[in-house]
Amino acid sequence: MADVLKVRADSVPKKVAGALAAIIREEGTAEVQAVGAGAVNQAVKAIAVARGYVAQNGFDLMCAPGFTDLKIDDADRTAIKFVVYKR
Amino acid sequence: MADVLKVRADSVPKKVAGALAAIIREEGTAEVQAVGAGAVNQAVKAIAVARGYVAQNGFDLMCAPGFTDLKIDDADRTAIKFVVYKR
Repeated sequence: MADVLKVRADSVPKKVAGALAAIIREEGTAEVQAVGAGAVNQAVKAIAVARGYVAQNGFDLMCAPGFTDLKIDDADRTAIKFVVYKR
Repeated sequence: MADVLKVRADSVPKKVAGALAAIIREEGTAEVQAVGAGAVNQAVKAIAVARGYVAQNGFDLMCAPGFTDLKIDDADRTAIKFVVYKR
């Protein structure tokens, strides 16, 4: 699987969407990770925008959200991980 | 399609997940709507938790996020709409 796309609260959804669409076209699947409500919101917007991008290639995207544990600055954090699929 | 599940920033993900799992078992698909980062975050958590609930029934969930326009207190707001599918 390709690198994990890490989304932050100040990430620009259109840019993330462009990167996401590129990975999906190449690999067929991608992983998006976000910690905190602001980041999760940007990640969801990015996936929504990316659906429009890949529609030009004749397919759609679906995602399966889940939880994953991370260590950030030595603290345990729970991130949301979206596995994004071609559909 | 069943009623739209409206999620707020103070919604409890487990409760929303229970309602979502029930709709999916009955209808096979559901719609979850959220306005604002806090609400979108709770909606995503609810979908993640609901995946665990329906796993007991032998299937998984996927969602397709999109944008939808709402009028709230006479103001135009953009909501995130998740169409959730059995998989």
